[in-house]
Amino acid sequence: MTTSPDATRPAVLTDPVGTVVPSSVPTHWYNLAADLPEPCPPALHPGTREPLTPDDLAPLFPMALIAQEVSTERWVEIPQTVREMYALWRPSPLVRALRLERALGTPAKIYYKYEGVSPAGSHKPNTAVAQAYYNAVEGITRLTTETGAGQWGASLSMACALLGLDCEVWQVRASYDAKPYRRMQMETYGATCHASPSDLTEAGRAMLAADPTTTGSLGMAISEAVESAAKDPAAHYALGSVLNHVLLHQSVIGVEALAQLDEIGETADVVFGCAGGGSNLGGLSFPFLGRNLREGTTTRVVACEPAACPSMTRGEYRYDFGDVAGLTPLLKMHTLGKDFVPPAIHAGGLRYHGMAPMVSHAYELGLMEAIAVEQDAAFAAGVEFARAEGLIPAPESTHAVAGALAHARAATTDETIVIGLSGNGVLDLPAYQDYVAG
Amino acid sequence: MTTSPDATRPAVLTDPVGTVVPSSVPTHWYNLAADLPEPCPPALHPGTREPLTPDDLAPLFPMALIAQEVSTERWVEIPQTVREMYALWRPSPLVRALRLERALGTPAKIYYKYEGVSPAGSHKPNTAVAQAYYNAVEGITRLTTETGAGQWGASLSMACALLGLDCEVWQVRASYDAKPYRRMQMETYGATCHASPSDLTEAGRAMLAADPTTTGSLGMAISEAVESAAKDPAAHYALGSVLNHVLLHQSVIGVEALAQLDEIGETADVVFGCAGGGSNLGGLSFPFLGRNLREGTTTRVVACEPAACPSMTRGEYRYDFGDVAGLTPLLKMHTLGKDFVPPAIHAGGLRYHGMAPMVSHAYELGLMEAIAVEQDAAFAAGVEFARAEGLIPAPESTHAVAGALAHARAATTDETIVIGLSGNGVLDLPAYQDYVAG
Repeated sequence: MTTSPDATRPAVLTDPVGTVVPSSVPTHWYNLAADLPEPCPPALHPGTREPLTPDDLAPLFPMALIAQEVSTERWVEIPQTVREMYALWRPSPLVRALRLERALGTPAKIYYKYEGVSPAGSHKPNTAVAQAYYNAVEGITRLTTETGAGQWGASLSMACALLGLDCEVWQVRASYDAKPYRRMQMETYGATCHASPSDLTEAGRAMLAADPTTTGSLGMAISEAVESAAKDPAAHYALGSVLNHVLLHQSVIGVEALAQLDEIGETADVVFGCAGGGSNLGGLSFPFLGRNLREGTTTRVVACEPAACPSMTRGEYRYDFGDVAGLTPLLKMHTLGKDFVPPAIHAGGLRYHGMAPMVSHAYELGLMEAIAVEQDAAFAAGVEFARAEGLIPAPESTHAVAGALAHARAATTDETIVIGLSGNGVLDLPAYQDYVAG
Repeated sequence: MTTSPDATRPAVLTDPVGTVVPSSVPTHWYNLAADLPEPCPPALHPGTREPLTPDDLAPLFPMALIAQEVSTERWVEIPQTVREMYALWRPSPLVRALRLERALGTPAKIYYKYEGVSPAGSHKPNTAVAQAYYNAVEGITRLTTETGAGQWGASLSMACALLGLDCEVWQVRASYDAKPYRRMQMETYGATCHASPSDLTEAGRAMLAADPTTTGSLGMAISEAVESAAKDPAAHYALGSVLNHVLLHQSVIGVEALAQLDEIGETADVVFGCAGGGSNLGGLSFPFLGRNLREGTTTRVVACEPAACPSMTRGEYRYDFGDVAGLTPLLKMHTLGKDFVPPAIHAGGLRYHGMAPMVSHAYELGLMEAIAVEQDAAFAAGVEFARAEGLIPAPESTHAVAGALAHARAATTDETIVIGLSGNGVLDLPAYQDYVAG
């Protein structure tokens, strides 16, 4: 114990001390479409198989988001109201994993970009607040959506509370019954959460008539949320991943990470992100890919997907529907087929048959790599990370951790590794318990 | 939508962008004992009623912590290893609550200092990592402690994982059975968690013999953890609040908050903190009180305690035991009496019959104020905060929010209010559910 050189003040350095200054939140989202060597294939109308028009989407989305969906602008200004909401948890920390490096005995430098500081505990609010904002500006007063385990539903509920919108969420009944915390979170924010299928929609009533004991599915919940929004001129529908505008909003993750690395004079050699629908992966990695394309940097991007749902490493690259019923537009993507039913792995956020078209296109162009990670290897990495760094990663995030740890163990130089930690695992502790208990 | 002025780079400003730079974590803790106009009354030996000596405490605590317990040094250097662990979540954000200000229609400026970004979701890791560090340095290989709902047990489990110590936690059986998430968190970190009373200690066996169906108590769990540590030369015991060294470590909250306010040219007019055992309140407010005493600033500090357990506003200021059995040293504090049984309010962290001696002394000297908050008013404030700011505060923290909101509603000037948000309520959602459902 020594006293500070200045006996009346502690030696708190004047370098960054947190998120107190809202102006440190990025001012623009980054759009990879501006830098791609060839454009992303368009979404097609499910009936005509012609490229979608803005009018096709107008019943469900506000014009600002429809414009973002097809924009090729490189930098899209973030509205000041959205930046103020981002400042509640952004910029998210970029942390040097010193203890993990020592535990691994690696010469590599490992950083992680941590989205679990958001009020909902994941990256989902980055797009939720933006979508709620654009809907509110265009006079919409109610948003509908579907949710599985509930991360997206809770994030949209929070966003609607901040913007004064009503929010109605159809949650797959199996999760609604088995995992009540996320529903409680939605209701604390003032949202309404229905178990799906419900008797509130034609689609739901038809499914209940066919099987009164069904525990529901994400595809069914989508149908209910879309039907409810389509029937109400004051309501719109919101989607938490896959679409271009969602990835655009999530680019705030990678824009910040690049700025934070620049600030300390670091360049990322390789970035690991978990891959489900693609919004966290795209949001984290596209700003790095854009710099590669514009400035000739050579940052590698590795998508880490679950071996149980390997759309990138095992799927086909073709047009497919986003939902089981075949009601959505056709998207050119890596897909296991819309009827593929992934096993009930704990990383619920990665259980999607397809991959975001923009991520699929970047992968097809060779701009990023992909690996598949077994669930046990993912949890082993998650526990190793938690015991070294304190944070318990979300089951989704453990896939990126597993990819990064294997890479770091083999490293022979002081290369710089960045892990995208998309969320924390506080509400997924039973999954860890299953793993720790063997 | 507009493009950035520089067409190749987004306008990310170069001001603070997060916790990437470990040197932004404070270098020193602050010790109010150095600035008090009269010294805090000493702890007394329960047998002799003479002031405690270091030897009395040596079986349970490392010498470094015993020295901190009686130190009058103003600035105590934070060991570099502890600073590296702090950098995992520190500096914690200080956020301007713009939306809340607008919702209240107040001219006051409201900031909150948010400790819920820590891996355990509360301020408790600030002292857990420091205590684990000093024990590890002195060759201790196992720490024991008690926990109620589990916030402290999870925090110490995390700290022990980071330092390579074994950790053994006795958790009150009622919580062990009813709230399994915190136990899962402890086990994910590699700790061992026993339901208390257990058959592993003499104290536990005696209690089980007297009542085989008992659901336990914090006092009983303390006895088991202390007994286990006292019998093992390689083990020590750790406490999560009340003691001077705990408040010293928690001063990192207030040191950061002061530096963050200085950074943006703000001075706090009034600080609201929730008061249970006193570690969050003391950690947040003592650096402000110290500046008042040294520099003549006039920041008010308001302790917000639960009306159901009002040690400051309704208790006596006298020597009392820290535990029910009367085994601990006698502490001069505001107390409701060691046999006082608080009702089962949701803010489990505030259910303690006494108040930290240092906080009690500061209150007695008139350096801070105190108010009592009813549980319904606290949750109402918590919900209002969540819907305006996104974050769902821990039930403990809602008491500080309630105090601040009442103050802000009555404000007539642009005074600056700081709220100590000691943690998030993610694992307390059932308590919110009870409130929201009426």
